[in-house]
Amino acid sequence: MQAPPAAPGMREDEIDTPALIIDLDAFEQNLAKMAAILGETGVKLRAHAKTHKSPVIAHLQGRHGAVGQCVQKVAEAEILAWSGVSDILVSNEVVGASKLARLAALAHIARISVCVDDASQVDALEAAAARAGVIINVLVEIDVGPGRCGVPPGEPAVVLAERVAAAEHLTFGGLQAYHGGAQHQRTLAQQRATIEMVVAETRRTVEQLKQHGLDCAIVGGGGTGTFQLEAASGVFTEVQAGSYVFMDADYARNGAAPPFQPSLFVLTTVMSAARPGGAVVDAGHKAAPIDSGFPKVWLRENVDYVGASDEHGTLRWSAGEGVRLGEKLRLIPSHCDPTVDRYDWYVGVRRGRVECLWPIPARGAMT
Amino acid sequence: MQAPPAAPGMREDEIDTPALIIDLDAFEQNLAKMAAILGETGVKLRAHAKTHKSPVIAHLQGRHGAVGQCVQKVAEAEILAWSGVSDILVSNEVVGASKLARLAALAHIARISVCVDDASQVDALEAAAARAGVIINVLVEIDVGPGRCGVPPGEPAVVLAERVAAAEHLTFGGLQAYHGGAQHQRTLAQQRATIEMVVAETRRTVEQLKQHGLDCAIVGGGGTGTFQLEAASGVFTEVQAGSYVFMDADYARNGAAPPFQPSLFVLTTVMSAARPGGAVVDAGHKAAPIDSGFPKVWLRENVDYVGASDEHGTLRWSAGEGVRLGEKLRLIPSHCDPTVDRYDWYVGVRRGRVECLWPIPARGAMT
Repeated sequence: MQAPPAAPGMREDEIDTPALIIDLDAFEQNLAKMAAILGETGVKLRAHAKTHKSPVIAHLQGRHGAVGQCVQKVAEAEILAWSGVSDILVSNEVVGASKLARLAALAHIARISVCVDDASQVDALEAAAARAGVIINVLVEIDVGPGRCGVPPGEPAVVLAERVAAAEHLTFGGLQAYHGGAQHQRTLAQQRATIEMVVAETRRTVEQLKQHGLDCAIVGGGGTGTFQLEAASGVFTEVQAGSYVFMDADYARNGAAPPFQPSLFVLTTVMSAARPGGAVVDAGHKAAPIDSGFPKVWLRENVDYVGASDEHGTLRWSAGEGVRLGEKLRLIPSHCDPTVDRYDWYVGVRRGRVECLWPIPARGAMT
Repeated sequence: MQAPPAAPGMREDEIDTPALIIDLDAFEQNLAKMAAILGETGVKLRAHAKTHKSPVIAHLQGRHGAVGQCVQKVAEAEILAWSGVSDILVSNEVVGASKLARLAALAHIARISVCVDDASQVDALEAAAARAGVIINVLVEIDVGPGRCGVPPGEPAVVLAERVAAAEHLTFGGLQAYHGGAQHQRTLAQQRATIEMVVAETRRTVEQLKQHGLDCAIVGGGGTGTFQLEAASGVFTEVQAGSYVFMDADYARNGAAPPFQPSLFVLTTVMSAARPGGAVVDAGHKAAPIDSGFPKVWLRENVDYVGASDEHGTLRWSAGEGVRLGEKLRLIPSHCDPTVDRYDWYVGVRRGRVECLWPIPARGAMT
């Protein structure tokens, strides 16, 4: 684990770089905003821990009304369960005997849900749950368009749900219906059209299940880009937003940007300014990932981040004031989730001072 | 720190996924091959730890003739020095009082070298070294084309070198002259043209320094893509290859691919195969970074890795045998360095069995 880059009480410009900082005022406003939006709908938030990777933030979300957490991997579920998070959904499939045994073991201390899209997996889950002496809640994942995981909506989902319901150590919990691509569609009209299709396929499947005597306690999906559409659908019971706590530069590029504000930044230092009109900072794509484009320089509209090597980033400016050797700058990550992944510590900052350090134990290529 | 995904003695298909595995036979052949190539030239290897991030591998490189290690960040230097690596070059600039103090502290237990490209940095380094009561060796970085860090070759380098030589707690160690872009140029002709220019600018600077009574004990540069050209130049004394120990898919795309073989793989499991002609594996861009393109599926020519989310990758095949749910596959990383960054453990494999686990303490967004 890396050494913490700061200590409580320090000024922001004393933090060692690169560092991952949370603007606590903005972060808390995002938590409250989500609670206010969903409070009017009756739909629940199951916040996605793939964004924050942190039990601290999971519990803060719980205090703001989240009914539980989503995770992507068993190792993420372990870290949350071991920290007292009591209701966890692995929002995709888990394959392999050792992973299923680990997942089942967690059901002794938390309510564990997981997705399936194959009959053999229902049998493997039942075997793991039986061996551990636990009950696991199972959602059938339907492919609502992305063409990745999930069975087709309708009849195939019913067949799989019946197999789940017949298994002694499994409960049928409902449907997982997430459209990742819709989160970053650039216009509200595109998003509306996509989610209309998602909702129609999901509603049809819920109704077919009902005709077979199978009720969906959970119908889950939706991310920060579209959750208000799912929440208004009358079909979804839970939304799975994660990025809303931090926002990121890519979501801000949506025409209908979600109603949250950037609260996560990478603090970086200018470590070379040997050329006119340009400089190099100590945050490259290891510190500020570029899978969704380059990060943006916070409050420096004339300075662009134009290139990244592993450890260093190149800045350019064409007019106005440039940056100085040794200066510290905030970057807005283009994609929060993989940015958080690179750090062992959040540095919480309020009004220019370090207020807290929070560990990030669920980072890395998780199993 | 993540739990190790394997234990010695396991079969490869028992390793939990995603996992970072080293094919030890191929890895050892790469170490020996580099020693053999450089042995004929008299030029030394200062292996770049930005690739492996591991004291274990640094020491193995030392046993194969490397004179020391390069690093990119002070935190990497700390981890190597604390593990007994005795000669470490930070192959770029270090800015900020706290980082310089940490760097100077290491000079009590190792020979520490660092680059400069600004006069103010020479003064800051001298102050840090004086406070710690140590000597730091300083290379002047010249910009041999990339337009990132470094002073222009020739006179500006002489001015800076004289300032270093005049400082009481610094020694002038020579030049850093690295051209990153040349490493991945696709034809040998392109690489020859670029390195010819690099060598000419470096030679001119070495000669000007000599005229001012300044000898370059170290002239360093070169990576896995071009090191044979620098080694043959008669000007460079050290090459800084790192990737050669592992190779990667991107280097293999060079027309004149370096004479090493892939020894690093990401082991992954097929976790959904709900659609004909495609499947999803449990290694996305967190486990197998895509900054240099998608990874390749090892020994499965008809199966392509065509898409990556944070935690999952999409495979497609158009003809021949596909992959099965639960099957484990090796991926060749497109870029080794950031791939290593995502893991806490190497799993060393020989002839299908796990032989060793090696920690990766220098991973993460290092300060």
